[in-house]
Amino acid sequence: MKLMRALLAALLLAAAGAAVHAQDTAPVERWGSKELTLDGPRDGNPFLEVDLAATFRQGARAIVVDGFYDGEGRYKLRFMPDSVGEWTYETRSNRPALDGKRGKFTVGPAQQGNHGPVQVKGTHHFAYADGTPFWQVGTTSYGWTHQPEATERQTLATLAAGPFNKVRMLVFPNQDVKHQPPRFPFEGTPPKGWDFSRFNPAFFRHLEQRVGDLRTLGIQADLILFHPYDKGYWGFDQMPAEVNERYLRYVVARLASYRNVWWSIANEFDYLTNKQMPEWDRYFEIVQARDPYQHLRSIHNAMVLYNHSKPWVTHVSVQSGAIAEDFERAVLLRDVYMKPVVYDEVKYEGNIERRWGQLSAQEMVLRFWTGAIAGTYVGHSEIFKDPDDMSWLGKGGALRGESPARLAFLRQILSASPAEGLEPIDKWQEYPFAGKPGAYYLGYFGRQAPVSWPFALAKPGLKDGMRFTAEVIDTWNMSITPVPGVFELRRQDNYSFADKDGRSIALPGRPYMALRIKKALD
Amino acid sequence: MKLMRALLAALLLAAAGAAVHAQDTAPVERWGSKELTLDGPRDGNPFLEVDLAATFRQGARAIVVDGFYDGEGRYKLRFMPDSVGEWTYETRSNRPALDGKRGKFTVGPAQQGNHGPVQVKGTHHFAYADGTPFWQVGTTSYGWTHQPEATERQTLATLAAGPFNKVRMLVFPNQDVKHQPPRFPFEGTPPKGWDFSRFNPAFFRHLEQRVGDLRTLGIQADLILFHPYDKGYWGFDQMPAEVNERYLRYVVARLASYRNVWWSIANEFDYLTNKQMPEWDRYFEIVQARDPYQHLRSIHNAMVLYNHSKPWVTHVSVQSGAIAEDFERAVLLRDVYMKPVVYDEVKYEGNIERRWGQLSAQEMVLRFWTGAIAGTYVGHSEIFKDPDDMSWLGKGGALRGESPARLAFLRQILSASPAEGLEPIDKWQEYPFAGKPGAYYLGYFGRQAPVSWPFALAKPGLKDGMRFTAEVIDTWNMSITPVPGVFELRRQDNYSFADKDGRSIALPGRPYMALRIKKALD
Repeated sequence: MKLMRALLAALLLAAAGAAVHAQDTAPVERWGSKELTLDGPRDGNPFLEVDLAATFRQGARAIVVDGFYDGEGRYKLRFMPDSVGEWTYETRSNRPALDGKRGKFTVGPAQQGNHGPVQVKGTHHFAYADGTPFWQVGTTSYGWTHQPEATERQTLATLAAGPFNKVRMLVFPNQDVKHQPPRFPFEGTPPKGWDFSRFNPAFFRHLEQRVGDLRTLGIQADLILFHPYDKGYWGFDQMPAEVNERYLRYVVARLASYRNVWWSIANEFDYLTNKQMPEWDRYFEIVQARDPYQHLRSIHNAMVLYNHSKPWVTHVSVQSGAIAEDFERAVLLRDVYMKPVVYDEVKYEGNIERRWGQLSAQEMVLRFWTGAIAGTYVGHSEIFKDPDDMSWLGKGGALRGESPARLAFLRQILSASPAEGLEPIDKWQEYPFAGKPGAYYLGYFGRQAPVSWPFALAKPGLKDGMRFTAEVIDTWNMSITPVPGVFELRRQDNYSFADKDGRSIALPGRPYMALRIKKALD
Repeated sequence: MKLMRALLAALLLAAAGAAVHAQDTAPVERWGSKELTLDGPRDGNPFLEVDLAATFRQGARAIVVDGFYDGEGRYKLRFMPDSVGEWTYETRSNRPALDGKRGKFTVGPAQQGNHGPVQVKGTHHFAYADGTPFWQVGTTSYGWTHQPEATERQTLATLAAGPFNKVRMLVFPNQDVKHQPPRFPFEGTPPKGWDFSRFNPAFFRHLEQRVGDLRTLGIQADLILFHPYDKGYWGFDQMPAEVNERYLRYVVARLASYRNVWWSIANEFDYLTNKQMPEWDRYFEIVQARDPYQHLRSIHNAMVLYNHSKPWVTHVSVQSGAIAEDFERAVLLRDVYMKPVVYDEVKYEGNIERRWGQLSAQEMVLRFWTGAIAGTYVGHSEIFKDPDDMSWLGKGGALRGESPARLAFLRQILSASPAEGLEPIDKWQEYPFAGKPGAYYLGYFGRQAPVSWPFALAKPGLKDGMRFTAEVIDTWNMSITPVPGVFELRRQDNYSFADKDGRSIALPGRPYMALRIKKALD
């Protein structure tokens, strides 16, 4: 009996030993993506029948990651390590060929430009995992990954040269009868002959390549998991709930290891009228449960707001045609939700007949500045009349509008602001300033065209004798002009401190002017 | 044995028979308050030691109502029947003298002016229980029930002659060192020598008298259960949680049978910094659990919003200094909460140095109209400089401002609007109209002073050939001027229908103008 037990133990050890992979030598950086590939069964339907996961360990930590079938008998597991040093892993599967595989690998420091995933910072702002502030300047290009290769490369070149650090983009193609997308997410025949039980790995590999391209560019991919722009044409907007749930698990298994992923459960969710609210809640819960890294999660509306106070919503993602025109509108949802607020759709720059696509560039830029001084973040896109129905909003390619240059300028200003984020200073008093009390103030006059601004700051954080310098910013012409001299404070009334000599700052009488005021370096 | 059992049964029957009250002949109307008075123990501390409740029954319905100790050996139970006919009751108590009391009484129809309690109607509006719309035109007079008799009578006379159908009012007195309130809610000695285990029934009887006076006037009493204006002076803002909970049960037991009661858990709840959020939730739950009639419940903020999407909140009660100045601000919280929205504090008419109390009458009225066309409701108050610190806001008495007359005019306009309530017509397009698509439109131009308005209506509910009449309303000068002729619609573009002959409505070039447009009676 003893002998038999010893023999069994030896056999088990040998088997385990055989399963230990050699030290994997491909270098992995912190917040990079470690990929394991395993050969496994091709029989039956691997998408439905094979379970695969792995536990990655470092010290006392254990992180469980779902694997996925990538076609042709290949199974993959992807892991985003958040700390350097040695990690080990061990797989679990209902198929012996995939079960009990173990190995280890070493994670090196993050390379330049890799700050980790973006997370919520404080109550109303974002930062990368390494602490670097993330000042969201987003755009939307729904179908850019469903275009011919040349167009997609042009989009990437445009993004590389542009101001945006986040792109909202559809996983599923939208309806486009004239230009059929090159790939579809399921096996089958367009427009509606799909086998919803079999994903098309090539479709997802392509999506991953593009998300990886954005990662290289330092751009967040705000992945829209469902959308109503299919209108039943491909039918991806009307799949059974079990297919939706399997799809969510598959997307998360494939893409969660990309540090630049955000999950947008849907765009204009309320236009998907065959899905009820509990279904949306369930989809949030699935993504929340399966994503080991807890990437940012939200959902975008048309006319009905999702209740962003639900616990699985990390930040507010809102469409509103009017909210970012006025800073006292924009500030309201901060207090309601106590989460970072992104106005992802505030109408678009363009010249089409639909009123959601006819903002002037000035109005597009105004919304970004208004959002910024309300302590919130705004999203851009553009749509101009085009004989081929080409638009940045729909397909990517080139940008034609005049706002992006000004948004690049804004992003510079934001990036030089306090790391804590811009906080509204005095929210109900027609006082359009945000910043950090006592240290930094960014004001914006929007459509008003004042010729002077009496130097006065709202009282929090101030006392007599404090000294400040100022700059006049022309947000449209992209100039920053220092104001000569230093302003010294004296209490003016119960609410404010003014310059002790009653001085004002001269302004040019044009709209879209801003002020930047900083505590003087003594 | 059989004999003994029969004897016991006979004794029990006799005892039960003795407990059956004669038919109570005092008439009770539907939604009136039926009061039962019982004599009971005076020993020990009845507030802590005696439990009393009664079940009121009609047919299959049973409604359990808490009783309360009213001092001097008297116990009371109050019940608000919501249907006519015969009701029975039976008490339950841990004291034999109060237990098992039974009786019956007959409820007659509601008398004139009694429409029952106010409830939520649809998503965003209010109605009385009998279906009559309730168009909230509220005011605030915090301490009006803590004044000398003459002042309180003056307040009631002012209310009787004024435009308001709701008053926000404090249960607990606020700090007022110069004028000590006549009564306190607990036994003991002011300012802080209270026995929190013993309520002062005379205090609550007085409060009930005033709530009853408001009921007679057809005015809702929005009872503020906690407030921060004590500042520790009386200490009612810093009682232990168990006292707060007992107080809530006592107030609900005493006052829930008044059909005009609304529960406001607190005013500026976030200024009561010694109470944390779970405590507020708990107070809501107590009121929700003990109130058999489910009177309206909300809570009012200073700088931090309570999450009004919590299930026990029936409607939104918000302070915001800026939200009701602009209809596209005001409309936002409707979509967030999907409940009726009342902006109970939007700054006040007055001339004090604090910026929350220096609105012009025009600005006060503007906020009401702006709120109305955003499909929301607004609250008034006023505070003028006064040598005796007398103000409507603080103590009641007389109104000095110029807004109330205009609010009476607004209330007339509202009362003549569709019973479903005013719904914003096209919320993101600088289109300041609310109403009922295809039937009724109320527009308001606020501070703008247009000289004409091109007749155009947003498309929902419209088709070519529909005919409308219009009136020009001067909201400040309180005039309604019919526009001659009838406007016939023709589709203008993808979003609107205009007058087929391109006509406009002439306007006087003054601010505060409104338009009322109704489908023509053919």
